[in-house]
Amino acid sequence: MEALVTLCKRRGFIFQSSEIYGGYAGFFDYGPLGTELKRNLKDAWWKAMVHEREDIVGLDSSIIMHPEIWKASGHVDGFSDPMVDCRESKRRFRADQLFYAVVTVEGQSIGYLCLEESGDMQAEADKQAQEMKRKQGVQGTLDPVVLREYTEADPGEQALIPSPATGTPGSLTPPRQFNLMFETKVGPLADASATAYLRPETAQGIFQNFKNVVDTGRVKIPFGIAQIGKAFRNEITPRNFIFRSREFEQLEIEYFIDPDEATWPRVYREWIDTCKDWLTRIGIPEDMIGEDVHPPEKLSHYSKGTTDLTFTFPFGTQELWGIACRGDFDLSQHQHHSGKSMEFFDEARKEKYIPHVVEPSLGVDRTLLAVLTAAYCEDEIPNDKGKPEKRTLLKFHPRIAPFKAAVFPLLKNKPELVECARDVYHRLQKRWNVAWDASGAIGRRYRRQDEVGTPFGLTVDFDTVEKDQCVTIRDRDTTQQQRVPLAEVEAFLAEKIDG
Amino acid sequence: MEALVTLCKRRGFIFQSSEIYGGYAGFFDYGPLGTELKRNLKDAWWKAMVHEREDIVGLDSSIIMHPEIWKASGHVDGFSDPMVDCRESKRRFRADQLFYAVVTVEGQSIGYLCLEESGDMQAEADKQAQEMKRKQGVQGTLDPVVLREYTEADPGEQALIPSPATGTPGSLTPPRQFNLMFETKVGPLADASATAYLRPETAQGIFQNFKNVVDTGRVKIPFGIAQIGKAFRNEITPRNFIFRSREFEQLEIEYFIDPDEATWPRVYREWIDTCKDWLTRIGIPEDMIGEDVHPPEKLSHYSKGTTDLTFTFPFGTQELWGIACRGDFDLSQHQHHSGKSMEFFDEARKEKYIPHVVEPSLGVDRTLLAVLTAAYCEDEIPNDKGKPEKRTLLKFHPRIAPFKAAVFPLLKNKPELVECARDVYHRLQKRWNVAWDASGAIGRRYRRQDEVGTPFGLTVDFDTVEKDQCVTIRDRDTTQQQRVPLAEVEAFLAEKIDG
Repeated sequence: MEALVTLCKRRGFIFQSSEIYGGYAGFFDYGPLGTELKRNLKDAWWKAMVHEREDIVGLDSSIIMHPEIWKASGHVDGFSDPMVDCRESKRRFRADQLFYAVVTVEGQSIGYLCLEESGDMQAEADKQAQEMKRKQGVQGTLDPVVLREYTEADPGEQALIPSPATGTPGSLTPPRQFNLMFETKVGPLADASATAYLRPETAQGIFQNFKNVVDTGRVKIPFGIAQIGKAFRNEITPRNFIFRSREFEQLEIEYFIDPDEATWPRVYREWIDTCKDWLTRIGIPEDMIGEDVHPPEKLSHYSKGTTDLTFTFPFGTQELWGIACRGDFDLSQHQHHSGKSMEFFDEARKEKYIPHVVEPSLGVDRTLLAVLTAAYCEDEIPNDKGKPEKRTLLKFHPRIAPFKAAVFPLLKNKPELVECARDVYHRLQKRWNVAWDASGAIGRRYRRQDEVGTPFGLTVDFDTVEKDQCVTIRDRDTTQQQRVPLAEVEAFLAEKIDG
Repeated sequence: MEALVTLCKRRGFIFQSSEIYGGYAGFFDYGPLGTELKRNLKDAWWKAMVHEREDIVGLDSSIIMHPEIWKASGHVDGFSDPMVDCRESKRRFRADQLFYAVVTVEGQSIGYLCLEESGDMQAEADKQAQEMKRKQGVQGTLDPVVLREYTEADPGEQALIPSPATGTPGSLTPPRQFNLMFETKVGPLADASATAYLRPETAQGIFQNFKNVVDTGRVKIPFGIAQIGKAFRNEITPRNFIFRSREFEQLEIEYFIDPDEATWPRVYREWIDTCKDWLTRIGIPEDMIGEDVHPPEKLSHYSKGTTDLTFTFPFGTQELWGIACRGDFDLSQHQHHSGKSMEFFDEARKEKYIPHVVEPSLGVDRTLLAVLTAAYCEDEIPNDKGKPEKRTLLKFHPRIAPFKAAVFPLLKNKPELVECARDVYHRLQKRWNVAWDASGAIGRRYRRQDEVGTPFGLTVDFDTVEKDQCVTIRDRDTTQQQRVPLAEVEAFLAEKIDG
């Protein structure tokens, strides 16, 4: 992970926001290469989900919407995390990330410990328990330390549990709800009527436009509305690089279906498969993708089923893509709150109903992190002198690589090579983002492109201009080279990129 | 304008945000076709400014940044409009949009009037003056009514000027500054230290990353950083549809140059020409574009020159693209506030300096409105029976049209036609967004596509499958038809779209 974060910074993929001002927790900026990678990722999704399908249309709704929408959706009342304050240090913790244990020696309590969730939390707790026993000079055998979530502590225990910030027992408050939506004020007045929210998800922008799309878009159920856009959550503990940030981008689809009980399980399964398939199309290996089916007791009252596609990140297996069957909850809520009918007249079934919905919801930033994780590798290849040399490469699928190809004249001081290479470069540029590099040994130029994931290196040499009108195309992953006629270069790349 | 707004709603280009909740002033949503048009516009810009140039790289920075950035940029102190409150009605006005006059009859004052800025403001003022004279029963000739901005009134006059909301003299406050940035709170604490802003421009995201890009991007001055992204301004009076909204999208470039006094005037002119040229490339006629050079006395102290490219909207000629020479103001400010050096070592000149900058700044939404305005037209063409019929069409340049082409089987109940047409459709879909329409008379299908600006209609008929392996391609603007071999359709479209 650390190597990846370093590479991301060094080669201009991802920067911490506001770095010159000491950074700003939970916000990230995409540098020149990260911006291209993100664009390609979003374009690949849009192409697969909107352009290549006839049952999905696009939408681009505003980030700030009428505040009533968030009442209808349940976010004003329910979109919150339980928080715990330390009265002494004024530090704040997420209650579900705070763990405590009663430390016992042969069944006798000798005190409480409390710590923040982390990978080596158990080891840390064991160490603290040992230390407590030593300090108190207690004899006997320490019992196993069993960590429990702070939310499970009763008031009596809360008074005994020390704050992880100060160690003082009883300085933590009971858990309280903290809404994760960012608030702002719209319009000239700063009173309560002006309160608005930055959307915490793009989905509601789709639901509030359902009728508009039905009325103007010649759509028939089943159909979907897709949207790409920023969303914001005031996470208490943003972490794991771009995995959990406060500002992020979503790729969401609301797929509207009839309310027949036989329909949703079929569509649900289809969407799980479609999403998995798309992940492999952008180069994520199937064996890094898992399915996490939410057990019935963890579902919201309106939900019929939710499956997360997971990915094995360096910091653990985490949710990447949630596919949720939300019934008619959202549209019904908006019908109720707005007083406007959300019913759809189904020509085929000759009936009116509020459609049900299956929602595949994906985060751009965590997908990008998955792509980077899957693409990052190190190997050894011979250098210009034939000696094995370590190399770092990003094995991006050509579909999403920031540069599709790099064009090199073998020597930069030979005008006939440069001119021919410029021709190739300009021709390819009409269609793709292509790099140009004329300086340094050819091996070094290859290596520079390997590190940013450019799948093909095209070298124009003397044979190109004097003999065969072919360029050498070098494959990033295998380092194999082949001669391809100039006239066929575009078709060669198109096949690799879109094929 | 009204016809355009209606078409935008009816065909799913642009909706008012939160319509089912009565709308939300200053916010808009893009429907299925508007989303495609906006994507194409942004892609065309990115391709021309980033991919086809070697001196510009992309960036995608966060909307919420460290608040210190907005102190450095001057926005916390200076990004404001003068506002006037009516104490009685609690209504609020922009002071520079409020006009007053002293009404005189043969040199004698008979009272004050005050109204909000509008196109027929002078006529309205004359009417009110007549009315005042009549009511007071004053004899003599009314002098010409001279309107002045409310900001020019002295306290004595302010006490006499009536509120446009209530008519009561003296109920308006003196002008006060109102900051246009949307505020929010980041992190768990809601105190002043948590205050952050939604960016009112994308430019500062570029400046704060200047060093990151220089350190990682292999760039040499002159070079530019381009960014597309949302920005937010709490406009007091959002108006003119998507022209002035509270949430909008920008296309900005900061083009860094050496501080030589001879450099900026040349680069400035180049950018004005480049921007004009790009507008014509997306189909905006040159004669609708103007140049508005800001006079020296209207420039900020650090600015060396600003030119607005203007466009003739239905509501008047307005700024579309600002090209501003900002000197080294922004980077110097960030160097001062962050304590980090913003100097660049120029290899060619063998010297270190803080680069100067030329900033071409364009709004996506107003460009889209310009594109729609330029494309909208009505004409008459013969219908299926040869009788002239009115038609509405959007003459989008193929480069930015939501659909590049529509594919029609002549008859939907002839499997051989449908199959062949599906083949064409799927082939084109791999590269572009293409529409499919199999229902209704062919003339009506053409008309439906005309209205959404699809430049080419491709019809598969019996000749296609039985005789010549050609399709009829019908041109939206001329309605001319030509036969094109199936194998050449892709090249035909590519030439029109990218050529």
